[in-house]
Formats: sequence, structure tokens, C-alpha cells
Amino acid sequence: MDVRVAIAQALKTSTRTLIACHTSPDGDCLGAGLALALALERRGGSVVVGSQDGVPPALTFLTGANRVVTAVPSGALFDTAVTIECGTVERAGALAPAVALTPMIIAIDHHEDHRSYAHLTDWDPAAAAVGEQVADLIPRLGVAIDRAMAVNLLTGIVTDTGVFRFANTTPSVLRVAADLMERGAVLHEIVRAVYEEQPPSALRVLGAALTGIELREGGAVAFTVITPAILQSAGAVPEEVQGIAATLRTIRGVRLALVFEQRPAAVHVSIRARDGVRANAVAQALGGGGHPGAAGAEVPRPLAETVSLALAAARRELGRSV
Amino acid sequence: MDVRVAIAQALKTSTRTLIACHTSPDGDCLGAGLALALALERRGGSVVVGSQDGVPPALTFLTGANRVVTAVPSGALFDTAVTIECGTVERAGALAPAVALTPMIIAIDHHEDHRSYAHLTDWDPAAAAVGEQVADLIPRLGVAIDRAMAVNLLTGIVTDTGVFRFANTTPSVLRVAADLMERGAVLHEIVRAVYEEQPPSALRVLGAALTGIELREGGAVAFTVITPAILQSAGAVPEEVQGIAATLRTIRGVRLALVFEQRPAAVHVSIRARDGVRANAVAQALGGGGHPGAAGAEVPRPLAETVSLALAAARRELGRSV
Repeated sequence: MDVRVAIAQALKTSTRTLIACHTSPDGDCLGAGLALALALERRGGSVVVGSQDGVPPALTFLTGANRVVTAVPSGALFDTAVTIECGTVERAGALAPAVALTPMIIAIDHHEDHRSYAHLTDWDPAAAAVGEQVADLIPRLGVAIDRAMAVNLLTGIVTDTGVFRFANTTPSVLRVAADLMERGAVLHEIVRAVYEEQPPSALRVLGAALTGIELREGGAVAFTVITPAILQSAGAVPEEVQGIAATLRTIRGVRLALVFEQRPAAVHVSIRARDGVRANAVAQALGGGGHPGAAGAEVPRPLAETVSLALAAARRELGRSV
Repeated sequence: MDVRVAIAQALKTSTRTLIACHTSPDGDCLGAGLALALALERRGGSVVVGSQDGVPPALTFLTGANRVVTAVPSGALFDTAVTIECGTVERAGALAPAVALTPMIIAIDHHEDHRSYAHLTDWDPAAAAVGEQVADLIPRLGVAIDRAMAVNLLTGIVTDTGVFRFANTTPSVLRVAADLMERGAVLHEIVRAVYEEQPPSALRVLGAALTGIELREGGAVAFTVITPAILQSAGAVPEEVQGIAATLRTIRGVRLALVFEQRPAAVHVSIRARDGVRANAVAQALGGGGHPGAAGAEVPRPLAETVSLALAAARRELGRSV
């Protein structure tokens, strides 16, 4: 039996469901989790949606964002727990113990590194987003996807595909997005809410980072440094430093991009790569980790030493991947 | 009879076809024009593709980019001319006289301001891109869309929708994009070729522009100034100054974004707006023009005077649109 049929069957009989997002939640796990919550409530069930780290400011427009709890209410018991994008049960953070206590655990995930821990697992690494999986699941619950569910699901697809720019964008996910638009989701309003309501300080930091671009290895490596002075003069906080390494990677010829951000206890290094270069190999040399395309590390050393270690690791990785 | 049927009928009997793009051609008119050329040649016809201003560097990956002529070979005669995205025949620039001399003129356009001048006109303002129209036309010629045609058509859709970010992105165009991917076009490779092969100088100019952001009218207006000194220190040329006003418009609360670029003979002003504010109203006050979302002007005045005129016009426009 298709596991999604079995999952729908289990969810139809659940009256008290816990939906658990992973720590540092993104648009996909929150959007898909909240859409599933709306669908189960439409059937009359009671649902708690939990995310240890709450909801990031750019995602508070999701329907139900204000109901997300950071811990399970004490004494609450559930007959079913659904984890969203948790490769291990521990990825649910503060919610993991409540998940583990539940008699029926359902995992919905599309990450490569999923390790089986649930009673029923919808693991689809070909899916661009769990939003794509949940968009297929909801109608199997006998519930029609309405506008609020469609907005939540499409937000997940938009954020996990980088608005359809990443290599995970398939014909299938484009068609699911088209269907969700016809259910009432307005794509450009989602794009705006997520990406086009930036604080001016974030753009000022980006500006300072871009004026300081350095190129190495014949232009294959680009890097920049963000000092506390840059943050202060831009009026920015560290959380606003995002997407800069990905911007450096758009330079012609660049295969590896690094952003060094000097924080009090350590240097935070963001690494992006392409064309067969592995960002995670460079991150591992610095004690960090991640994926081939995107990785990072926290290095408790002085800035100059960190830059020099990272550039040496970058050179080794480029030598390997030629 | 559906005009697209009539157009297919006319093109099936054409043996010498001229395909004319508009001046300052973009990815949509070049992509759609070159895809149609490939389809007509598959039928055995001979085709010339013309673009007065050639092919921009970021679009030379299109199949057939190297065959685009900037003027019609002298003495060449055609039985059919197809204009792509030309609201008037004059928009074909240096190719307009050859178009006007042709006994059968076909216009394919999706812009709001099309004025009828052709014998057969496929005018579809609901289409996100003419690539969407031509993707529907080619099978009517009895030709299957192959990989090269699909890449060219999808490039048009990608560039005219801002990679599916703009409000013109419909469920229909997402489904056409999915179909073109199944014909062999690789979406993320197109995105990379168009947007992710930037010269480092372009990012350095963006950086300088962003560090100099100024806000006015309680944060509803953002602007920045690009001086010759900024270009020189970045090693950039004016053509690399692109997309900066659109980036300023992503600031929370900003409804009108302006970039002033000091050039030898005039100040080049790029204007972007949202939330009911009209960029073209501000441009018109400066002697320029455009659309509500995106407009521009060339102002032959000193920089300080131009900024002050523009900010006054911005204030008037904000007052109107409250």
C-alpha cells in the first residue's frame, strides 16, 4: 500500500495530533505543518503545532503562525505525532520527547539524510519541498485545499526552491505551484512577504560586504569579511546577515564563496559552492559541516587566522575538484 | 477562426521568413524569435532573425544567438515577416523598413500598448511572455518542440517573469515552463546563464549603491546615487548598473525607489514602485516614461538639481496615492 494512503488512514482516525517542526524552522516545515493542521481541524480533530524556535519574522504571515508553540503544554497527550522535515526525532528539539511518547509517529521528510524512526514514513527525496508532499496528502484526507492551506504550502515550495531557481525545481513542483495558485495562493504576494520586506540595515550590510569582495585562486574563490564595525554602522544585528555568500557565488568564474562574520566568541563562516566544488569539505576543515552547495562553521579563532585556514582549505578543495 | 490557427497556416506556406525583435532586445523576444526560427527551419523554410541592437552578452547562450543580424542583408526579400514584442512596427528599429515591405506581416506581442499594424496579430496581454504564445504556436506548425527550442522559450519566460517572481506569473505559465523542462530545458542552467555569471565589478557597484541608501518620506522613498567615481573605483561600465532600483524596492515600507546615475550628458534615473505608487508618473515629471512598476528618465541637468526635482515629484505622487 502506498505509504501516503496509510498515513491518510492514520490521520483520519487521530483526534489529538501534534505536528512538530525542526529546530530553526524554515518556510517549508512551518508552511507544510500549518497547512496540515488546518486540514486536520477541518475534519474536526484537535491539533498542536510546535516549533522549538518559534516562527521567524519573515514567516509570521503564514495562516496559524501565531498558534505555533515552542514547547508542548504540560500534561498534553496526543494519539498521533507528525514530524515535518526531521531526519531524526532529535531534530524536533524541545518537542522530541513528546513525539517519542506518542503511540503513532508519522514522519514527512524530503531530505537526503533521513534515518527511519517513525511508524509511518513519507520520505521523498525527489520532492522539492515537503509542501509538495503535503499538497498530495491533504486531498487524501477528504479535505479540499483552501486558500489558507494553499498559501502555506506554496510558501514552503517557494522558500525551498529559492523561488524556483534551485536545481530541485522539477516540472512536478511547478505544476503543484500552479494548482495551489488556482486554490487562491497569490505567488507574488508570498515572494514579497518572504523576500521583499527587508530592513534597510540588511541592505546596508550587504552593500558593505559587496564593496569588500576579494577574489583568490584566479577568481574561483570570492570572500568578504563582516566586522562588528560594519554591523554597527549599518545599524544591523547578526540575524540580518543572510544570503551574502549566495550573492558572491553569482560572480562569473566563482566556484566557492565565503563570508566571514566576526562575532564575539567565534568567526561565523558561511560557504557556498558550485561546479563540483564541495562547500561542506571546506566547512569540515574548519570544524563545521553542511551540504556540497551550502555549508558553514563556527571557528573560535582570531579573524585573520580563520580566513587564512579557510583559504588554504579552499585551495585544497579546488585542487581536488579540477 | 482562432488567429493562431491562421498564423500557423500562413507560416506553413512561408519559404523566406524575417523574424524581427525589438530594439534593446530582451530574453523573451530573442528566445521566442530564435525558437520560432528553429521551428520554421525544421519545416524546410529559410529564416533570417534580426535585432537592431544584437544580442546582450548574458543571452549569447541561446541557440542561434550567433546568427542574429543587426540589419537585413541588402537585396533580401521575404514572403513573411514576424515581429516579436513590437507594439508598433517602428519598435523593430533598423529592421522596420524590411518588415513594412513584406507582403504578409505577423505580429506576436503581449504588451498592453500594442497598436495594430500587422495582417495577422497574436496579441495576448494575459501571456506572461511571448515565449508562452510561441510555445503554443510551434506545435500548430506540425513541429515538436525540441531541447534547443525549449531552452530558448523558457529563457523568455524566465526573464519576463523575473524567474516567476512578478505578478504576471500565472498558473498557465508555470505549466508551460514544466512542459518545456520535459522537452529538455534545464531551468537552473538558464537561471545561472542569465543571472549568475556577473562580473565582480557589477557587484561592487551594487555594494557602493547599497551603502549609500537614503530614505525619505518616512521611509516610503529610497534612493541612491552612482557617481563616475563609484564606477571607476569598481572598474565598472554603465551597462553593468542594473537591477539596483529593484533591490531598493525590497526594503520594508519602501513604495518608490530611485537610482540616479551621473553620466556625461545627463543623469540617468531608474525608478521602481509598488503599492499603487506610479513610477511612470515620477518619470514623466522628469521628461521620461515607462510603466507604473518600472520607469526611467534621462535628465540633462546637474545631479543635485535632478535629485531634488525627482524627490519633489516623488512626494507629489505619494500624496496622490495615499
